[in-house]
Formats: sequence, C-alpha cells, structure tokens
Amino acid sequence: MDFATYFQDRLAALKSEGNYRVFADLEKRCGSFPKAERHRPDGTTEEVTIWCSNDYLGMGQHPDVVAAMVDAVRTCGTGAGGTRNISGTNHHHVLLERELADLHGKEGALLFTSGYVSNWAALSTLGAQIPNAVILSDEKNHASMIEGIRHSRADKVLWKHNDWRDLDRKLHAVGDRPKIVAFESVYSMDGDIAPIREIVEVCEAHGALSYIDEVHAVGMYGPRGGGVSEERGLAHRIDVIEGTLGKAFGVVGGYITARAELIDFVRSFASGFIFTTALPPACAAAATASIRHLKTSGAERARQKANVARVRAMLDARGIPHMKNDSHIIPVMIGDPVKCRMISDMLMADWGIYVQPINYPTVPKGTERLRITPGPLHSAEDIAHLIEALSALFSRCAIAHAVA
Amino acid sequence: MDFATYFQDRLAALKSEGNYRVFADLEKRCGSFPKAERHRPDGTTEEVTIWCSNDYLGMGQHPDVVAAMVDAVRTCGTGAGGTRNISGTNHHHVLLERELADLHGKEGALLFTSGYVSNWAALSTLGAQIPNAVILSDEKNHASMIEGIRHSRADKVLWKHNDWRDLDRKLHAVGDRPKIVAFESVYSMDGDIAPIREIVEVCEAHGALSYIDEVHAVGMYGPRGGGVSEERGLAHRIDVIEGTLGKAFGVVGGYITARAELIDFVRSFASGFIFTTALPPACAAAATASIRHLKTSGAERARQKANVARVRAMLDARGIPHMKNDSHIIPVMIGDPVKCRMISDMLMADWGIYVQPINYPTVPKGTERLRITPGPLHSAEDIAHLIEALSALFSRCAIAHAVA
Ligand SMILES: Cc1ncc(COP(=O)(O)O)c(C=O)c1O
Ligand SMILES: Cc1ncc(COP(=O)(O)O)c(C=O)c1O
Repeated sequence: MDFATYFQDRLAALKSEGNYRVFADLEKRCGSFPKAERHRPDGTTEEVTIWCSNDYLGMGQHPDVVAAMVDAVRTCGTGAGGTRNISGTNHHHVLLERELADLHGKEGALLFTSGYVSNWAALSTLGAQIPNAVILSDEKNHASMIEGIRHSRADKVLWKHNDWRDLDRKLHAVGDRPKIVAFESVYSMDGDIAPIREIVEVCEAHGALSYIDEVHAVGMYGPRGGGVSEERGLAHRIDVIEGTLGKAFGVVGGYITARAELIDFVRSFASGFIFTTALPPACAAAATASIRHLKTSGAERARQKANVARVRAMLDARGIPHMKNDSHIIPVMIGDPVKCRMISDMLMADWGIYVQPINYPTVPKGTERLRITPGPLHSAEDIAHLIEALSALFSRCAIAHAVA
Repeated sequence: MDFATYFQDRLAALKSEGNYRVFADLEKRCGSFPKAERHRPDGTTEEVTIWCSNDYLGMGQHPDVVAAMVDAVRTCGTGAGGTRNISGTNHHHVLLERELADLHGKEGALLFTSGYVSNWAALSTLGAQIPNAVILSDEKNHASMIEGIRHSRADKVLWKHNDWRDLDRKLHAVGDRPKIVAFESVYSMDGDIAPIREIVEVCEAHGALSYIDEVHAVGMYGPRGGGVSEERGLAHRIDVIEGTLGKAFGVVGGYITARAELIDFVRSFASGFIFTTALPPACAAAATASIRHLKTSGAERARQKANVARVRAMLDARGIPHMKNDSHIIPVMIGDPVKCRMISDMLMADWGIYVQPINYPTVPKGTERLRITPGPLHSAEDIAHLIEALSALFSRCAIAHAVA
C-alpha cells in the first residue's frame, strides 16, 4: 500500500470540507491573561485576546498556583520518574488525591494523566471487569467516555440526551444485569446542564452505578467548586465523580472520586493508570493549590458569572444569535465550517480576537460554531470590543440572525 | 448487583495472590537524587536511595531542565488552558515538536500527554483508519501498544518476540493488505534489545509500515540520544519512531515522529490527541531543554553505562543471578510475588534501599523480579551498599542462585 498517498488523500478531503485544523500558536504571558502573543506562520507576532480558553477562571496564572508549581519544581524536580507503582508516587500526588476526595465528599480519589485518560481508563475498566455489565451512555457524551466504553467491549445502550425518562425505560429493558450510567453535568459544546437529580433517582431505582463527568463544572459550580453535583446537593448520591485539573483548575491531569473500594479496584486493574508515568509532582502541587483556593474563594466564580451575563445581554441587544443555556459557555452558531473559520480568521486578523472555530468532529457537521467562554479576567473593554467585532462581522457576512 | 462486594472480592483475590500493589510515597529532593524521603504509612519519614527510577539519567533535576520549567511557569502560567486546537497550542509545544523531529531526523513530530497515549492513539488511529489494515505486533509489546491495537479493531497478528524470521513468515501469510509492524527497541522488563536492522529489512521487503517504541532508549542510546535506531544508523528507515519525555528526559509526555503526512494524519484523526488538554507549556519547555542537553552531552550516558557495568560485575562476583542483556536494565529474578515483595520490603526497612517488586500484570506470573536501574548519579558507595544488601538478603532468604 502507498501509505503516503492515502494519508494525503484523506487530508485533502478534510481540507475541501473545511474541516482541516490549523492550530493558533500562542504565547501566554503570566499576569496579562486573557491577552497573549500569537506567532503568525510568517514568524511575526501580534497581541490577541483569548475568548475560547478552558482555563475558565484564569487559575493558570494565579500567583498561589504559579508559586506552588515553581516551588515543587525546585524541590522535587521536573518529573515523577516512574509509574505510580514503580517509584513514581510522590507525596504531592498523595496530598492531591486527599484534596480531591474531600472536594467531592468521597472516600477516595485516583489521579490520571488527563481527564481523557480518567474517563477512558475508568469506564473501560469498569465495563470490562464487571462481568456481564451494560453501560448506558448519554448520546452526547464526550469522546473520552465513548472510547472508554468502546474499549471495554461491554454492551452499550445509548439514551436520549438529558432524557431521564428514556434512561428509565432503557434501564428497565436491560433487566437484571450490572448497569453503569454515564453522563456529564455541563455539556461542553452546547453548555446545557443535565437533570442530575432525576438521573440519579432513576439510577437508584434500578440499582445502577452512576458515573458523572464534571470536567466543565469543577472549580466553577458549587460553593467549594465541587461541580454541579455539589451545587445541587447530590454528590453523595453519585457513585463516581470524574473531573479534570486542566480546565478551571488551570493545570493538567484528570481524576475520579468514589468509595474506597471502587477507587482501589480501578487503581489495581486499569491499564491506562498502571502503565504510564505519573504526572510531575509539580503539576500535582499546583492543582492542589488551585483546588484549595477555589474551595474558599468565590470571587472568581462571581466575576465569571457576571461577565457571562454581560456578554449574553450584549449579544441579545445586538441581535447576535447564541444558544441559551444555564452555564458559562456561550455558543454562537454559524452552521457551516468554511464560514465559521472565515469569521474566526477575520476576528483574529482585524480585531485581535481569538475564538477558535469549532468544527467536526468536535461538533456534528452543520452545527459549526464559535464557542465563547467569558472569564473573570475579561475587562469591560474586552467585552465591548468583542461585541463590536461580532456585530460588525455578523452584519458584513449577512449571517441569518435567527436564534439557532 | 452489589458492586462494593464484587470490588472487595476481586481485591481480596489480588491480595491473597501477593499481587496487590502498595505505592511507596516518596518525596524527591532536587539536588540529592537518587536519594529521597519516604513517607511511611504511620506518618514518619526515612531517607531511601532509589534504585528503580525511570528518570534514568537524573535529568529531572538537571539545573537547565529545572530552570526551563520554572521560567516557563513564571512566564506562561501552569497549564495550557485548552486542547491543541482550541487555544491550547503554545509556542513551547511548537518548539518541542521541532526539536523532536530533529532528534530523530524526521519531517514532523506530534506531542501527546504521555507515551502511553502516544502509542494508544497512534496505533488505534492507524489501525482503524487505514482500510483493511493488519497490525503485526511483537508478542512482548507494552500494554499501551496492545490496547491501541485492540482499540483499532484491526486484525492483529502476534509474532514471536524479537524473531524477525517469524515476522517475515507472518507478513508473507498476510498477503496484499496494508501492514503495520509494531515493536520496541529496548524491552523494559527484560532489558533485551530488538534486532532492529533485520526487522526493518523484513518490513521493507513486504512494504509494511514500521513502528518502533523507543521509550526506554531515547536520551540514552545514540550519539545524540536518538535511541537505538540512531545508534544503529536505522532511524531514516523506520516509518514511525515513538518515545516518551517522562523517562530519560525527566519530564512527562509522549510523541511520535514520522513523515509530515503521517503526522498530519494522526493529528487530524486521533481522538486521544484531539479531545484532551495539551501538556503545560512548562513541561514542553523543560522537555526541550532536556533533549537539547542530551543531544550534545554524552557525560550522563557514559556514567550510566559505567555504573551499569559496575553493578553487573559486582552481582556476578557475589553470585547473584540477573538476566543478561545489552541495555541499562538489570532484572534480578525472584520468580514469586510474595518473596519478591518480602525482599523489597526488607531492602527498604533494613537498608534504606528502594527497589519496587515487579509483579503481575507488569510481568508474567512466575517471573517476578527486582528491576534495578543504575544511573549516572549513583555513587560508588551507593553501589557497594546495594550489593552488600542484596548479598545479605540472598543468602538469608536462601534463594536459588541459579541464573534465571
Ligand atoms: C466532557 C469532557 N470530558 C473530558 C475531557 C477531557 O479532559 P482533559 O482535557 O483533562 O483530558 C474533556 C475535554 O478535554 C471534556 O470536554
Ligand atoms: C515500552 C513502553 N512504552 C510506553 C510506555 C508509556 O510511556 P509513558 O510512561 O510516557 O506513558 C511505557 C511505560 O510507561 C513503556 O514501558
């Protein structure tokens, strides 16, 4: 087989669909986030304001978090030096796992190299190791859960997005087998939030193990940043709470929290946990500092909420269509990959605004969008400038102003 | 189902087999590696010498690497803040990918969150996306490759470990289909090295894509640390070279290097690359510094080699059985999980020596071992102390002194 030609053909097809991805090459500058330097392909640079970061609260440049990471690099070095089992467990990992268990009110926590790996490894292990298990998965679940479920080779049943009645029917149909229900709290691309209480009650009624991905909620929802499950007082009724350290907490890594024996089970059997170098102790130390800060400080969350509301109100005032939801995520729908990239390119070139076009496979074809994530560090001027730019482009491009 | 009881039963079975894992809780101190503080379960601490680290060359505490990481945390913050596509690409990632491509003499490189993810994502994508592909896998390949191949659902053919004649026969039997051959250079648990030239020639003869895991070789073999494929002058004849930044380079992360279109293909289609937060820019900066240092400095490699030879010679002099191989890995075979843990516990308690017992599932049952990895920073006294301790324990425990 001529591999090179095959790869080139597939890439050419992506390009002609408008789905070929070009990464913006940024240089963030601590202290001036959400501003960053962008390296243009020609080698020159320009200043941009980032409007699509998942460092939702700017914790990645918080002085306590930066100091914790710097200190730990200085004292422990740059890497863990091994898998968790073979010389790679550092005291910072142990402390972080305690902090995470406390954050969600659970007996135990287990750290992974990323949120992706935590979902993939936990679901693939539970699905593969529990004999005759069935995994019931919300149809809009994230790729990391889909791949974990697929990898487990357990039977999989999709239920309608956020539809607990459909889940109830499907659990009923499964009958007397071990059942695992996997869903998210905040869905990252539409920003809608699951009816967690109803889902949990359905799980309880059927004796199903409940597994929630709070990746886009931890740090941001609940009085201590424990996610939507904390905000709604439901954390203790959910079996597994999964989250990331790479978004609102501003570092990198993923985790699950649960009862002690479930954590120990995944720790003991998950290939994606066992056979990989542990996170650098300095990342664990930084994450711990970030979690601790957000457990007691509500200031970042309050400013984020205010800025999200302000952006929404101003979009409405200018008649710019955006998807309604109860979260911090503002999807401005474009519905075409080529247009979506074009608008994004113009925002960057003419306005110094960076909002990455979100195309397939991250969202279904035909639902291409700009996904705007206002944070506590965007100023009133940043917001005014964004709205100005979007209005100008929306009238120029004559995009339908109907609400998507 | 009573999940809790099921988990407890499985854990009890692990314990009774001697395969339950207890992680040593370490606190590494920059500047005094391979010494570390160990936190005992009772809260007290003791000093130990680490003899099982995969920070093979001590680069995790090298001043240039530490400085690069500290600087980047200070200037860019603690995290990437997004996936590579959505605001997560930082200039440090771009520079690291260039450095990696150069290290292996390839057109392109792609960074992943770990070596595990790089193998899993690259092999699952190639296997799934190339129509009708067959993956021919060395029977001793690492879990991350096995899981990637399994996930691809491509047909898989195992060939006898390091047996290029068997590979040749099996490639022949596969016939006219796209063929991918996956193998390692240094096998991490036995420390043996693959006959790379013969394997590459067989691949070339059959038009198969060759994929080598150099995780336990990068930084340590070849005049610039490009791995065994560099040392043997074969890098340009191998299609994909995969490696880690978490072992000899002392940080965290994984990568593949290859021709531009293959890199672009995996970049564009691999779920495990697309849907996850990028590594912290500071980790990328530290890895770049480490690679650059080891490209020009041979001192760490030379001291490592000398210490490995010294340990081997002293083990031989005392009649302590260890597996012969051409690498830096010294497996001292025990052959029983309970004895293996017992010896490891005594080394820790009585001698302040930390060598993790390597049990199932990392090695097959019955081949339990102590895996010793001498590095450039172990002193002559450290070595003498290790040999003293092992001789004392080996005579005390009356372990068969036959070579395993
Ligand atoms: C819902 C969801 N779960 C999991 C992940 C993966 O988390 P991480 O970025 O830490 O790998 C993401 C995005 O990256 C996500 O959107
Ligand atoms: C042969 C081999 N490949 C890949 C990996 C995974 O690399 P990483 O630790 O960077 O995830 C390991 C060990 O961890 C390994 O031994």
